[in-house]
Amino acid sequence: MTTEPAPHEDYDVVVIGGGPAGENAAQYAIQGSDRTAVLIERELVGGECSYWACMPSKALLRPVEVADAAHALPLTGDVHPDLAKTLLRRDDFTSHLNDSGQVAWAEGAGIHVLRGTARLSGERSVTITDQDGNQHTVRARHAVVIATGTTAVVPDIPGLRAAYPWTSRDATNLHEVPGRIAILGLGVVACEAATWLAALGADVTLIGRSDRPLERVEPFAAELVLKGLRDKGIEVVLNSSIDSVSRSDARQTGVGHLHGGPVTITYADRRVEVDEILVAAGRAPATADLALDCVGVSTDHGYLRVDEHLSVPGKPWLYAVGDVNGKALLTHMGKYQARIAGAVIAARATGRPIDGDEFRDLADDGAVPQVVFTTPQVAAVGLTAAQAPHARVVDYDLATVAGASLQGDGYTGQARLVIDGDLIVGATFAGPDVAELVHAATIAIVGRVPLARLWHAVPSYPTVSEVWLRLLETVRG
Amino acid sequence: MTTEPAPHEDYDVVVIGGGPAGENAAQYAIQGSDRTAVLIERELVGGECSYWACMPSKALLRPVEVADAAHALPLTGDVHPDLAKTLLRRDDFTSHLNDSGQVAWAEGAGIHVLRGTARLSGERSVTITDQDGNQHTVRARHAVVIATGTTAVVPDIPGLRAAYPWTSRDATNLHEVPGRIAILGLGVVACEAATWLAALGADVTLIGRSDRPLERVEPFAAELVLKGLRDKGIEVVLNSSIDSVSRSDARQTGVGHLHGGPVTITYADRRVEVDEILVAAGRAPATADLALDCVGVSTDHGYLRVDEHLSVPGKPWLYAVGDVNGKALLTHMGKYQARIAGAVIAARATGRPIDGDEFRDLADDGAVPQVVFTTPQVAAVGLTAAQAPHARVVDYDLATVAGASLQGDGYTGQARLVIDGDLIVGATFAGPDVAELVHAATIAIVGRVPLARLWHAVPSYPTVSEVWLRLLETVRG
Repeated sequence: MTTEPAPHEDYDVVVIGGGPAGENAAQYAIQGSDRTAVLIERELVGGECSYWACMPSKALLRPVEVADAAHALPLTGDVHPDLAKTLLRRDDFTSHLNDSGQVAWAEGAGIHVLRGTARLSGERSVTITDQDGNQHTVRARHAVVIATGTTAVVPDIPGLRAAYPWTSRDATNLHEVPGRIAILGLGVVACEAATWLAALGADVTLIGRSDRPLERVEPFAAELVLKGLRDKGIEVVLNSSIDSVSRSDARQTGVGHLHGGPVTITYADRRVEVDEILVAAGRAPATADLALDCVGVSTDHGYLRVDEHLSVPGKPWLYAVGDVNGKALLTHMGKYQARIAGAVIAARATGRPIDGDEFRDLADDGAVPQVVFTTPQVAAVGLTAAQAPHARVVDYDLATVAGASLQGDGYTGQARLVIDGDLIVGATFAGPDVAELVHAATIAIVGRVPLARLWHAVPSYPTVSEVWLRLLETVRG
Repeated sequence: MTTEPAPHEDYDVVVIGGGPAGENAAQYAIQGSDRTAVLIERELVGGECSYWACMPSKALLRPVEVADAAHALPLTGDVHPDLAKTLLRRDDFTSHLNDSGQVAWAEGAGIHVLRGTARLSGERSVTITDQDGNQHTVRARHAVVIATGTTAVVPDIPGLRAAYPWTSRDATNLHEVPGRIAILGLGVVACEAATWLAALGADVTLIGRSDRPLERVEPFAAELVLKGLRDKGIEVVLNSSIDSVSRSDARQTGVGHLHGGPVTITYADRRVEVDEILVAAGRAPATADLALDCVGVSTDHGYLRVDEHLSVPGKPWLYAVGDVNGKALLTHMGKYQARIAGAVIAARATGRPIDGDEFRDLADDGAVPQVVFTTPQVAAVGLTAAQAPHARVVDYDLATVAGASLQGDGYTGQARLVIDGDLIVGATFAGPDVAELVHAATIAIVGRVPLARLWHAVPSYPTVSEVWLRLLETVRG
């Protein structure tokens, strides 16, 4: 246990939830001032991203990416992810689930850290229950920020909960590789977990209701990911739901260990046995324990709606940043919102106006980027063609870009711009290692750079970014 | 030999030099019209880039990059570039020095291809000498475009020319790996060639006059490249020039084969023996054979100066695009200039005004990107700190960006923005695999996107592009 500072009764800013969004909100609300902040966390400071999501996922996926890249090039020898070393490196990136580094960062930034579960107990009042059941209450002079994130949803399928299925935390923090695993879901978590589990030796079956993986990305990108999954020997079952699950000796073991013996699942008139089942069927906001009703905010256990200042309408002292507000369930967007909210809190605390763009969440309105680290990757920002039915859509085959073909034999990929008038409103890149391509599109969208101006932004040869030239040539016809 | 179309006496556009810049100028000058163009090439259509520069270089370097990436990750086994397979893949990317694909592209675009050496023989008049010494003259109704590029400079060092040293073409088209090779030069060609030669087994010594490699990039990037070269066992000799060279049995063998027996070189009071010497000491414009004086243009065998329309001042029918104009010796800039020149030619041919930005070379004025594919890579655009002494300089250590540290153990890199007022005027990224990071900066510079707006361009987590957030946070202090 870390040494905790003595709780003050009053703080300028009280933040509930110590993930990246909560940390950033506290930091931005007080930095450069003598304001005080407290960060209340019931698990690990650093949150889902640091220990159970982005960091371990990417640590597990990066060796797969590079092994795949090596296989497409004229190299002697052969490489594959080494299970023990890969898990150890993953553990290094999650600080072995020790948050002392994050606590030290917070304290260095002037943010007090309190351990416990927090709930609202009145206007600007938060009551914390520590692990021994002791309660105390802190009051916020300026702001209370909710940054509690989401938790995994386990659907109401007969036998599923009783089977103690894996959720995303078990997949990212796996210590044993199941010989056979069924993954319920076709979203980002499901597809990424399938990728590393298969690379580490599991027989993987993905099962989901939709007609393609990654429903929210451009269909061409989803098709490339689907092919990539199947090329890796992963069975992908579309348009199907699991009817029932049974596991005779289900038990609560540690995170990332098998939660019992074999699991029998039935779906689509089939009955199969696997060694583990992973539920990656969506997230629900962690608002149930917050007692929001005591300040007149009803969420019906749903997302906490906020205005462009990340403030709850009618409650200028109450903010919600990160996944809990449902705008975009992405670490970088939560941190962005936190920076905006922090700036708003600081301005309001000092009586400054909040009418500048730096106090507005602009990015969530059409400029949300996301990278899916599957094989191939998908990197997208803004609107898809389906979201902008009147826009112009321009596609280009990445494999015909010199810089891409040089990346590896058999390079397959595609890029799309979605264009409204003379502005780009959306972009999607799908292919190996396209993660870093999307920020150029984000800047073009946010900067509202007209196409005629982009014509003078020359991509270097031979890079994959040369696809920008090809896309713009295609626009010009 | 390809079947050549019968030469017409008159064309709308005559292009001398069939590299990427010449090809693009011809294409853009006639596309969507019934104008005619002829492309005159004395070697291979596709030019230096396709056969002897960008394409083979990158084909040789990409396996090195991925082998290095693999070594920094928890993989079983080991990989190194396979010499025979790497050279074969290189040959595939240079089409085995067969330009029939490029000729077919040109003909498909309505561009006639003529083989031979061209010189000006009067206003809008070009005389071609074919390989048999036959001459004929073509006339240009609208424009003559010079796109002859550059050739390697062999400095006047005693014994050097008589030793038949390798030039860049031998290095990119190598068929034998010299056991020991000295490289004269510290620029991009020298550093990239050193990287692949060392990876393919050569003992490499780089010798140059300057106090660091890559003189034109930010010093921090040059330092990282210097360290990278030395970490690979390459000897880098700075602040030195070669005094003399001797090779007893020098002979003109084929490109990429050893040009004789051992070479003795003396430099800095040392005398060493190597198996080959590569001269990578700069380029000179290929203007000497063009007879430019016959139309009153003097180059003194130097670069052909042009205005913002890529037109030779006072000669609205004469254009120069690509390396030969000396603006930026980069394929992508040559192609860009060619697109601009082609648009200007098309407009002038049809009596349209050329006062819009699409007819101006804007990028060469402060928005030239370049990627150096060394280990680590350097990707830069716009001004360096030294070129903008009154600008604000903001640095960030890439190793502390989560997305970068995940790329591989021991990740080392740095990013810099050069800022003038509220605009970015330069950016440099140095580190493994940073090539695709620079286009975002190019768009920010060309789009003149203010810093306050860039704050809302959120990089995805965990990508290397997150360094944008860190740089902007640093700007805000």
